[in-house]
Amino acid sequence: MIECLDSPSIGEEIFSLARNIFPICRSITGNGVRETLRCLSEHIDLKISEVPSGTEAFDWSVPQEWNIRDAYIKDSAGNRVVDFHACNLHVVSYSTPIRGRFPLSELQRHIHTLPEQPELIPYRTSYYRADWGFCMAHNQLQNLQEESYEVLIDSSLEQGSLTYGEYLHRGTTDAEVLLSTHICHPSMANDNCSGISLLTLLAERLAHLKTRYSYRFVFVPGTIGAIVWLSRNEQLVSRIKHGLVISGVGDGGGPTYKKSRRDDSKIDIAMDHVLRHDTSDGKVIAFSPYGYDERQYCSPGFNLPVGLLQRSRFAKFPEYHTSGDDLDFIRPEHLAHSYSLVVRALDIIENDIRMVNLQPKCEPQLGRRGLYGSVGGAAGHANQIMADLWVLNYSDGEHSLLDIADRAGLPFWTIREATSRLSAAGLLSTGHCPIE
Amino acid sequence: MIECLDSPSIGEEIFSLARNIFPICRSITGNGVRETLRCLSEHIDLKISEVPSGTEAFDWSVPQEWNIRDAYIKDSAGNRVVDFHACNLHVVSYSTPIRGRFPLSELQRHIHTLPEQPELIPYRTSYYRADWGFCMAHNQLQNLQEESYEVLIDSSLEQGSLTYGEYLHRGTTDAEVLLSTHICHPSMANDNCSGISLLTLLAERLAHLKTRYSYRFVFVPGTIGAIVWLSRNEQLVSRIKHGLVISGVGDGGGPTYKKSRRDDSKIDIAMDHVLRHDTSDGKVIAFSPYGYDERQYCSPGFNLPVGLLQRSRFAKFPEYHTSGDDLDFIRPEHLAHSYSLVVRALDIIENDIRMVNLQPKCEPQLGRRGLYGSVGGAAGHANQIMADLWVLNYSDGEHSLLDIADRAGLPFWTIREATSRLSAAGLLSTGHCPIE
Amino acid sequence: MIECLDSPSIGEEIFSLARNIFPICRSITGNGVRETLRCLSEHIDLKISEVPSGTEAFDWSVPQEWNIRDAYIKDSAGNRVVDFHACNLHVVSYSTPIRGRFPLSELQRHIHTLPEQPELIPYRTSYYRADWGFCMAHNQLQNLQEESYEVLIDSSLEQGSLTYGEYLHRGTTDAEVLLSTHICHPSMANDNCSGISLLTLLAERLAHLKTRYSYRFVFVPGTIGAIVWLSRNEQLVSRIKHGLVISGVGDGGGPTYKKSRRDDSKIDIAMDHVLRHDTSDGKVIAFSPYGYDERQYCSPGFNLPVGLLQRSRFAKFPEYHTSGDDLDFIRPEHLAHSYSLVVRALDIIENDIRMVNLQPKCEPQLGRRGLYGSVGGAAGHANQIMADLWVLNYSDGEHSLLDIADRAGLPFWTIREATSRLSAAGLLSTGHCPIE
Repeated sequence: MIECLDSPSIGEEIFSLARNIFPICRSITGNGVRETLRCLSEHIDLKISEVPSGTEAFDWSVPQEWNIRDAYIKDSAGNRVVDFHACNLHVVSYSTPIRGRFPLSELQRHIHTLPEQPELIPYRTSYYRADWGFCMAHNQLQNLQEESYEVLIDSSLEQGSLTYGEYLHRGTTDAEVLLSTHICHPSMANDNCSGISLLTLLAERLAHLKTRYSYRFVFVPGTIGAIVWLSRNEQLVSRIKHGLVISGVGDGGGPTYKKSRRDDSKIDIAMDHVLRHDTSDGKVIAFSPYGYDERQYCSPGFNLPVGLLQRSRFAKFPEYHTSGDDLDFIRPEHLAHSYSLVVRALDIIENDIRMVNLQPKCEPQLGRRGLYGSVGGAAGHANQIMADLWVLNYSDGEHSLLDIADRAGLPFWTIREATSRLSAAGLLSTGHCPIE
Repeated sequence: MIECLDSPSIGEEIFSLARNIFPICRSITGNGVRETLRCLSEHIDLKISEVPSGTEAFDWSVPQEWNIRDAYIKDSAGNRVVDFHACNLHVVSYSTPIRGRFPLSELQRHIHTLPEQPELIPYRTSYYRADWGFCMAHNQLQNLQEESYEVLIDSSLEQGSLTYGEYLHRGTTDAEVLLSTHICHPSMANDNCSGISLLTLLAERLAHLKTRYSYRFVFVPGTIGAIVWLSRNEQLVSRIKHGLVISGVGDGGGPTYKKSRRDDSKIDIAMDHVLRHDTSDGKVIAFSPYGYDERQYCSPGFNLPVGLLQRSRFAKFPEYHTSGDDLDFIRPEHLAHSYSLVVRALDIIENDIRMVNLQPKCEPQLGRRGLYGSVGGAAGHANQIMADLWVLNYSDGEHSLLDIADRAGLPFWTIREATSRLSAAGLLSTGHCPIE
Repeated sequence: MIECLDSPSIGEEIFSLARNIFPICRSITGNGVRETLRCLSEHIDLKISEVPSGTEAFDWSVPQEWNIRDAYIKDSAGNRVVDFHACNLHVVSYSTPIRGRFPLSELQRHIHTLPEQPELIPYRTSYYRADWGFCMAHNQLQNLQEESYEVLIDSSLEQGSLTYGEYLHRGTTDAEVLLSTHICHPSMANDNCSGISLLTLLAERLAHLKTRYSYRFVFVPGTIGAIVWLSRNEQLVSRIKHGLVISGVGDGGGPTYKKSRRDDSKIDIAMDHVLRHDTSDGKVIAFSPYGYDERQYCSPGFNLPVGLLQRSRFAKFPEYHTSGDDLDFIRPEHLAHSYSLVVRALDIIENDIRMVNLQPKCEPQLGRRGLYGSVGGAAGHANQIMADLWVLNYSDGEHSLLDIADRAGLPFWTIREATSRLSAAGLLSTGHCPIE
């Protein structure tokens, strides 16, 4: 896994893909999702599914498909004072079609703004209640004259389908790692172009590697998409041993890892380890039932070991679900950093085995194997020798490399290197390493 | 249980009863206890027991009954410089009768004062060693002239009985909650008129309610009374599933909950929860073998799940066991607050059941049931929806409502309300709810 | 055990023995070790073993025996600018013999100094690589003239043996407590004359006592000596129930207890208790696989419950492994204090039994047994009565005296005294007390 990190340009590549898909007007169904998945298909061999409107999925059913071609508010002079083509956040997602003239007083009942953030356009949806609406900057609304406006929303809401994409990297076993992100937000860069792009580039690099686990990448519309995917793959979930939802991974905050409902699943422990040994100010927070699609994966009927990696916590940064979440809000270096955190956690998942010290009675003589300094007596010891001693002392068949790393207060990768040195010196053998 | 809180005047009512019983000269036996229980009988149907002097109770036996009619110290001019009728703390409890004249120097050997708190009269007892004595303010002692004093203690110590009262509210099961307080202190308001009165008023209100548990209210003299009660009810203690000793619940300190010897019994967890979600500066402290009658209930041969609720910790406030613990030291609002803490904890005991989410796979669609806002995208969520999500996610048959509340960081009562909403919407059913 | 503390002069006695053995030039083999053990034999009946060079011990073999008679560096005027007889740290331990003349530039490659501590001579070894060298103060090296020096190391490295000593105090059972220290350092007072002397004096006093455990004192060269001892006593290690490595116990720092690899073995709990109830600023630290001979005892193939007691942490004080670790660096009062810590921990090991309260239902009446004050009502209680109440409440056959002490927040010895009082009063009996 760690080989995936040999990509100095990875931050720029993720950013570039995010920039490409940023302008597309996505929703939970419709052509925006299809166009997004087509972009991803240029990198990975994506399997795309279409699920017809009306299909039942547990307590839900797939809604009608929504598409939009144009929308505006024109003043009496014929100027588009609000224009969907300028920013697709201007239209409430799933707005029913409308054409008419309204005085400002009436139109205002269909306009959403953020009085506290008067420069920003909010992002709003009305998936499950037939309604129409516009979103705009509060400052702009304040400047609208009291006159009659021509309003158009050229949308359609009809029988169609919900679209999602999947990519499966096959490992040497059927045990799976689930990596999931939502693909239903219109032009917002962090939430969620960043997650879509990071997972796509990771999948692309992973394709060249031999792994123990199979890796399933799932690109689904939020909530309803995850629910539909689970309802169509119930027989598969028992294979999922570890998982991450990835979203909001391009901004400068966090990073934040939210644990799975199980609280101490292996991915939780691995992510905690990675963040503890990272120089950033990362935080691990407890599971709660509100958030992204981990809500569905961690519902009590599934209770999958799936956590959430994000940077700033969703709904906690001012740009959240506004036009402020644009391409300036994310940066290649943050994307690269998030990518490295994911890869390091997956590296632990792949490689956290138990080794067996072949000289368990007393210390083996490291000096004659060239693993120890030759002049004794000086205070202190290189980290390298300490890592060797930790691995030797705890490779008793009970402690995995991650256990040893946590005990030693050393990063997993330092312990892994010690393992290589000691195995080469004939002091360690690989113990029984079941896929957990 | 929570219905017991619909009593805006409860603080005044508890205070009023405390004021009524304050003047009575109680001890561990005698007419003071009987008169006190008679006052309580005006509120509840108290069953009163008389246990003859000499009756054995484990390592103890019931002492002779003590009664007192008058006591004084008169100076040479015939003035009562110390008068039992002015304050019943003036006489050491269980003083043997005495009549005579003593020079001050000799009399002083029988006088107890508090040099550090020279205005206050201490409370002293000599239950198990035949002796007599007076208690007075140190300042007053300083002012006594060196002369001969006439001394009278018109008391009797003879065969009689120890008196205690019980009230049993029958629930739908035989499982019991024990609520106990001592009734042996003379005129002290906080320790222990406050506890006696709080439990009496609670029992009075509880009489009108249907409960799962039976509630046993025990009013006994401290130490010997609890020991006698336990020795006569050994066959009953296996029914006691939860319990509280209540004392010192009228002052402005604390509140303080001292855990049962078991340390994590349900009442301990419930009280901890109630204090954590209370606005007061409450503290939960570990069990220790010194205190009130929880000492007996938690002796190793019984080890009952019984904790202690008090406000300021006994023996830690300056007025403790002095004339400073008078009716000005307690307040209706503190009594009402203590009452509400007890009721909330008992509400948890009564209602901490496990519910079962009937739609455990993915989230149910709350929107079409009117349990969710209709416009999506805004940051944040009402506490109500969060409570609903917590209940749905953790109602897996393993987590009780209190477990869920503690996980969510929400009060038990908020979680209970969510349960009602979700049950009404057909999303929850009541699981197996054994009395624990 | 606690009787061992009736030695007001113990600090002086340990110091005196340390001063006697300080001048001897010890190494991991050779006459210095033999002479040291001879000094100890004046106090205890030491059994001395000689293990021939070449003997295999797990991954190691006993090295050749090293002895040294003289060593110097002479300037052109014939003055000994470095003289082994002035300080035996001047010669790198296990230096091969050399005689010759070297210009300073060449000689310098064989000289070790401490530029950061220019007044001190470092201690260096080269056990497993044939080499020779001198150690000196950096200031002195700076003052050496650029000239030709006559160099002599009159040492021998040849077939011989490794020497160690053992003393066994037999208790009433075969279960053993291991007390081990290394005896391989030349003239350094804290590391390790202090440990050698403390254990010798403890063994001497222990000889007169009847104990439940047998106590095995092991005086071995560091690392190779402990490895050799373990390899020759594998059949014995299952008897070792508790153990301590003792070293660096004379300086003014710490004390520091490093836990055994098991982390919660009885000796770890006992030492933690002793340090918590000590007035010094003691610290308990986790096991790590670097240190003194606990490295061998706690290797995974043995995993013995053996911790390390030291004062300042090794390699963390400036005088460590330098000429600064001299007789001024240790003090009788620190040695006496370390001694008392060891004795108190061993006292817990010996005496941590479970008692049984013979009156478990309610409190027994302490007053009629003279164990309680006669006048009641006063706030607070003597520690003695609190200890009695703790012992009575928790002597339920499940809690040992140490469990009770830790719960009560009282020292073990206070709880032990309570046990004596209560047993004498017929309230306690000794429960089943297996050697653990």
